[in-house]
Amino acid sequence: MGCHFPVSGASNVHPSRLKDIHGNYQPSTIPSKGVNSMQTSEDPIGCSGFSRRTFFRYAAGASAVASMPILTEAHLALAQRPHFNDPNIGIHIDANENPMGPCDAARQAMIDIVPRGGRYLMDMEEDLTNTFAKIEGLDPESVAAYAGSSEPLHYTVLTFTDKSKPLVVADPGYEAPMWAAKIAGAEVLKVPLSDPKGEASHNIKAMLAASSNPGVIYICNPNNPTGTCTSRTDIEYAVANAPKDTMLLIDEAYIHLCDAPRSLDFVKDGKNVIVLRTFSKLYGMAGVRMGFAVGRPDLLKKISVHGGFNALPITALAAAKTSLLQADLVTARKKIIGDTRAQTLAWLKSEGYAATPSESNCFMVDVRRPGKEVQAALASKEMFVGRIWPAWPNSLRITVGTPDEMMTFRKSFTEVMNSSTAGLTPAPLSRRLAEHPFTHLS
Amino acid sequence: MGCHFPVSGASNVHPSRLKDIHGNYQPSTIPSKGVNSMQTSEDPIGCSGFSRRTFFRYAAGASAVASMPILTEAHLALAQRPHFNDPNIGIHIDANENPMGPCDAARQAMIDIVPRGGRYLMDMEEDLTNTFAKIEGLDPESVAAYAGSSEPLHYTVLTFTDKSKPLVVADPGYEAPMWAAKIAGAEVLKVPLSDPKGEASHNIKAMLAASSNPGVIYICNPNNPTGTCTSRTDIEYAVANAPKDTMLLIDEAYIHLCDAPRSLDFVKDGKNVIVLRTFSKLYGMAGVRMGFAVGRPDLLKKISVHGGFNALPITALAAAKTSLLQADLVTARKKIIGDTRAQTLAWLKSEGYAATPSESNCFMVDVRRPGKEVQAALASKEMFVGRIWPAWPNSLRITVGTPDEMMTFRKSFTEVMNSSTAGLTPAPLSRRLAEHPFTHLS
Repeated sequence: MGCHFPVSGASNVHPSRLKDIHGNYQPSTIPSKGVNSMQTSEDPIGCSGFSRRTFFRYAAGASAVASMPILTEAHLALAQRPHFNDPNIGIHIDANENPMGPCDAARQAMIDIVPRGGRYLMDMEEDLTNTFAKIEGLDPESVAAYAGSSEPLHYTVLTFTDKSKPLVVADPGYEAPMWAAKIAGAEVLKVPLSDPKGEASHNIKAMLAASSNPGVIYICNPNNPTGTCTSRTDIEYAVANAPKDTMLLIDEAYIHLCDAPRSLDFVKDGKNVIVLRTFSKLYGMAGVRMGFAVGRPDLLKKISVHGGFNALPITALAAAKTSLLQADLVTARKKIIGDTRAQTLAWLKSEGYAATPSESNCFMVDVRRPGKEVQAALASKEMFVGRIWPAWPNSLRITVGTPDEMMTFRKSFTEVMNSSTAGLTPAPLSRRLAEHPFTHLS
Repeated sequence: MGCHFPVSGASNVHPSRLKDIHGNYQPSTIPSKGVNSMQTSEDPIGCSGFSRRTFFRYAAGASAVASMPILTEAHLALAQRPHFNDPNIGIHIDANENPMGPCDAARQAMIDIVPRGGRYLMDMEEDLTNTFAKIEGLDPESVAAYAGSSEPLHYTVLTFTDKSKPLVVADPGYEAPMWAAKIAGAEVLKVPLSDPKGEASHNIKAMLAASSNPGVIYICNPNNPTGTCTSRTDIEYAVANAPKDTMLLIDEAYIHLCDAPRSLDFVKDGKNVIVLRTFSKLYGMAGVRMGFAVGRPDLLKKISVHGGFNALPITALAAAKTSLLQADLVTARKKIIGDTRAQTLAWLKSEGYAATPSESNCFMVDVRRPGKEVQAALASKEMFVGRIWPAWPNSLRITVGTPDEMMTFRKSFTEVMNSSTAGLTPAPLSRRLAEHPFTHLS
């Protein structure tokens, strides 16, 4: 089965993918319920001001340093560090990666294909999509393979939004579609999650009401960063009531981690729905790169002109097919990650911290102070946690790592929360992430 | 060094990537010198009419079959075959792949990174581009990594051509930029290679004269399919004389295979030049997927909005960096492929066949009858050779395989050329290649 945790699960991805590093925080931790932030996103990316050669620094100067003795040495250490963290140092629960990596059979499949690396092996792509289609009962022509799901996500938004056809998203939600909308020149309508202190799910009716002619309505199920699911009833409502030219983009990057109903049947029924799948999360193949766009062939053809012509890495094709054929893999990994998540959420609750009721491999925890400060303080302990959303500035996204990693997280989190973090600011983004933040995470 | 030939170098990629399978051939084998075909390419792809479920067939019916007894059994065998050839059967010298595959050190690097497949490892991308930049004396911000060079090729044409700014290409030349121009709505101006029976190089002055405001002038050096180089003097002329808003796209996918001067210095000098590099050819990583766009940072930023945000496969990042650090790899492989090419070209000449004076891993041979027939006849012997260009319908592109493969090619080629091939038609394209032909080959 190969569902082991590696001895050293540490990896990189810079800890600070902050949209709002230059912004001013709102006093409230969680926004009030409603549809009050349906304005254009002026700059959904907002990282362009960074110098790539600058490092970790305190915004508040020496007096802040003096009040945080536990951070001083680490601060200095980080200041010496290049703009990427050493992926071999520290615990990285910041990018919704799966610390288990590819399953054993997938690893072997990758190793076995290496000698054939000189060949394009285009047939493997068709073999993979046929395999997935057969398992899911889909027409193979409704399945297009991509090197992860970021590309079809981006291309779907580019294809179906424009200056007159906005993008509708949940807030907080995954930012990649907003990046694409900005390129398409489309307005972004952010609709707050409903019941933010409770179920924190997509407010589907408000999302449908947000525009009379949306180009794309993006539903990430379960949602990133909250890990919360949108009910089948709500998704059915969206499919039934969206304007006829609107594309429903249902991102199921994390769907294997929960029991929520899948949305592939809408594709089988010929609806205006594109479903995204990835091998980056449950399958542990974020760095291997494989995903699917599932939709009517005419829709897949439309999005493919933006890309989708590129030959795919044969290592990824081999690992993905092998992973699909491991009968118990999804169930076993869902339980491992689910158990670790439940233990972590229970501990946080026992410590008095509110977190979203995640069914995924990430959740948002309300730290009751600027999340970026806590993120920076944790980073100084080589505990790298995921980012902050402007809508919930006092919450931090935490990825579910290995049981050991999460025990270390508890210790570091306790230490940080027992200290002042005032004025701490995370390190700036690397060049690569400053140019293209967020969008690599699916 | 790892420059061995594998025991079994066979692989797939369908043998028939014919643009003109439904077209009527011109009577002349080689077009006359000049700039006489500078019309819009109505359908540079031209494969949309295929049924994905049809197989190898004779266009001329039973009488043609009767005259070709050597093909009958093979015809039947092929008719049973699914639409992709079995990559483990036959000799594949049809896709300009390198039968040596990745070098040993690169293979080991790929195997070593497999356990970390669950991580995005974005730092590896920056490490790779920094390594390449250092070796080549470039500003690291002038280098962008992609999963092969097809994407930056496509994106450069999408960015700099439009309805009023045509694409200028050499003919015969690599078709991928024409595909992108079609999507961009740009006119395609095809300029015949100069001295087609001699040096068959880009007619740079005619290419510059083809349009007063070209969006992109595409120079593949060495050229695909002819393997011929364009002189430094001509490329310098193009850089000096192109309109100031024109992008020169210099595709150096095959540059490592020849001694021609490289064009990276134009980037260092801040010219309107984007140079493409790939690991698919000399480095033997076609299925691994890694390449570079090299250009001024402002140009790279412009093309990146179409894509370029996706995380890259860590297997490819590891293999590419390792390959760059193998000091003698380029020289050794250039000699191996060059020797095999020289032997094959000398044999063809001794047999009375004209071929282009290639300095690359492919060449065009004039078969003095419709090339598609010879291609089909060779395919029936499980000898898969590269495709035909409409401008030279009686020529076939041959990729330089291993010495053993090329000896088998000689035998099969002799048998085919001693037989009638009248009416033979290659198998149709697979779904994948019918949708996106050609563009995966860099």
